Amino acid sequence: MNQNQVRELNAAIEAVKGYPVENVYFVACGGSKAIFDPAQYIFDRETTIPSFVYTANEFVHRCPKGLGEKSLVITCSHSGNTPETVRATALAGEKGALTISFAFKTESPLWEATKHGVSYEWGPDTDAGNHNNGMLFRVVFGVLNALQPCEKYERAIKASDSLHEVFRVNKEKFAARANAFGSTYKRAPLIYTMSSGPCYGVAYSFAICLLQEMQWVHSAAIHSGEYFHGPFEVTDYDVPFMVLKNVGPTRPLDDRAEAFVTKYSKEVTLIDCAEFDMHLIPEDLHEYFAVLVLGAVIRTYADALADHRGHPLSVRRYMWRMEY
Amino acid sequence: MNQNQVRELNAAIEAVKGYPVENVYFVACGGSKAIFDPAQYIFDRETTIPSFVYTANEFVHRCPKGLGEKSLVITCSHSGNTPETVRATALAGEKGALTISFAFKTESPLWEATKHGVSYEWGPDTDAGNHNNGMLFRVVFGVLNALQPCEKYERAIKASDSLHEVFRVNKEKFAARANAFGSTYKRAPLIYTMSSGPCYGVAYSFAICLLQEMQWVHSAAIHSGEYFHGPFEVTDYDVPFMVLKNVGPTRPLDDRAEAFVTKYSKEVTLIDCAEFDMHLIPEDLHEYFAVLVLGAVIRTYADALADHRGHPLSVRRYMWRMEY
Repeated sequence: MNQNQVRELNAAIEAVKGYPVENVYFVACGGSKAIFDPAQYIFDRETTIPSFVYTANEFVHRCPKGLGEKSLVITCSHSGNTPETVRATALAGEKGALTISFAFKTESPLWEATKHGVSYEWGPDTDAGNHNNGMLFRVVFGVLNALQPCEKYERAIKASDSLHEVFRVNKEKFAARANAFGSTYKRAPLIYTMSSGPCYGVAYSFAICLLQEMQWVHSAAIHSGEYFHGPFEVTDYDVPFMVLKNVGPTRPLDDRAEAFVTKYSKEVTLIDCAEFDMHLIPEDLHEYFAVLVLGAVIRTYADALADHRGHPLSVRRYMWRMEY
Repeated sequence: MNQNQVRELNAAIEAVKGYPVENVYFVACGGSKAIFDPAQYIFDRETTIPSFVYTANEFVHRCPKGLGEKSLVITCSHSGNTPETVRATALAGEKGALTISFAFKTESPLWEATKHGVSYEWGPDTDAGNHNNGMLFRVVFGVLNALQPCEKYERAIKASDSLHEVFRVNKEKFAARANAFGSTYKRAPLIYTMSSGPCYGVAYSFAICLLQEMQWVHSAAIHSGEYFHGPFEVTDYDVPFMVLKNVGPTRPLDDRAEAFVTKYSKEVTLIDCAEFDMHLIPEDLHEYFAVLVLGAVIRTYADALADHRGHPLSVRRYMWRMEY
């Protein structure tokens, strides 16, 4: 982390220490919202404090009655400029909540609206442990530790420090499979994603950001527990699914979905977090950190798909090109 | 309501009165889970008590730390026989939580596992106000009133009593449009649904139960707030969308999504809750009860689609036909 990040992080955690947190709202849009899904999962597993994930405009207009002076509201916008997220952060402040916000761009409306900005790095030449996910996990474990001493804290910070190398090793490990995925599915008009527990958010962001937004490929994220209560009826020999198996206690849900879908579809791509090289991460934290590795690895699947389709991930037809 | 229902409902509400409810978990699978979405929305709008919706197997395996002796866990299974929901109900009981469960079939494992069973009616010759949604709303407002006198309670119960007639009138009002939808989209391989706030659950259940499960048509429920942060890039002149506009405070999200999608797709079907004849429902409750009317109306769209496709809603290729 650079000195700004250290200072911002410490200030945010210090503020939480003196704060009577009764509930936690994670609020953002799209890909930034998806990274909050594992954070909420960690809260569910580590503390009795209720926590929620809302897309920003739902949060603003629904305005949950629980939002108030004992709320901690954590928001994120890469550009610091997403109007809904800026508005949500401002609303939280107006209601007396403590706000912590993540952004890549710090001289931004989000920075103005929040109490505690935490900046993250971005780009291939920076340490992935200081990107959005790494910084979020530092805040998540920092907040947990501030609320009640959390014995996982020190190890979680060390694990965050090692993310860059863990990502590198595992992206390399899956490179051939990522390329095969891109080649095999370059003409697929639709690809479903499926996962549960800490990894559902990755299934969601792959579906809505990588496939729908960046590849114009139809998709939906299916929760592997919900699969058997509706969606599985669309399964057929030629319907592509990506199954993302997590290594936490909900793994049996992913196992069951995989067993069924591989029986009735010939087009299943599996990414199993149990295959990741995680030796730099303490074993009891694999449940939480594997999702970040999955996020890095699956991105290479999108890169390969984009390459084989000749449709760069940066292309948009509406976003950045018009008012909406 | 029949005498059993009255007795069951009263017993459940009485139990809540003496209970120190600190959080509420709504737990079920598929279509039964989807009906909990508006219930959680009502809790968010009416009380500061935190509430959550989980698919049953996620709930069981994640086992949120907040689940305990001060939890109210509300579950639902039509058959009373869904293994994940039965297990979730039993787990809640083991953790000391108060459990209330809805089912059509009362002599069932769910009935054994729960503390307070509330039965609902089903079928065309029964009063829709006593079906799953109607009974759920009676419990939701009953619980809210038990926790803290809720001035909407009496009117909400009266509104529930009138649902059958409200459904009838509005299904008739939309009959021609439902038929046109079925005819127009009988050859569509994919139809997206979109909504927000109290109606997002209807978009979800139409996508996963009516389209994917009962019609084998590809689909995804898109939150209208999330639409602009990824999914909108799949919009094209020939991509079908169903936009469900709610009449609560998140309506601007649906308005914005509708304005965009109708500009770039020629295949948009709109169901606007503001068009419903709601004169039997008090105006300040439209926000909540419109979603139930929407559920009844949109079902006729599925009926029409099934009819035009010659693919009855009752057909399955996996469910009920094999072990999984």
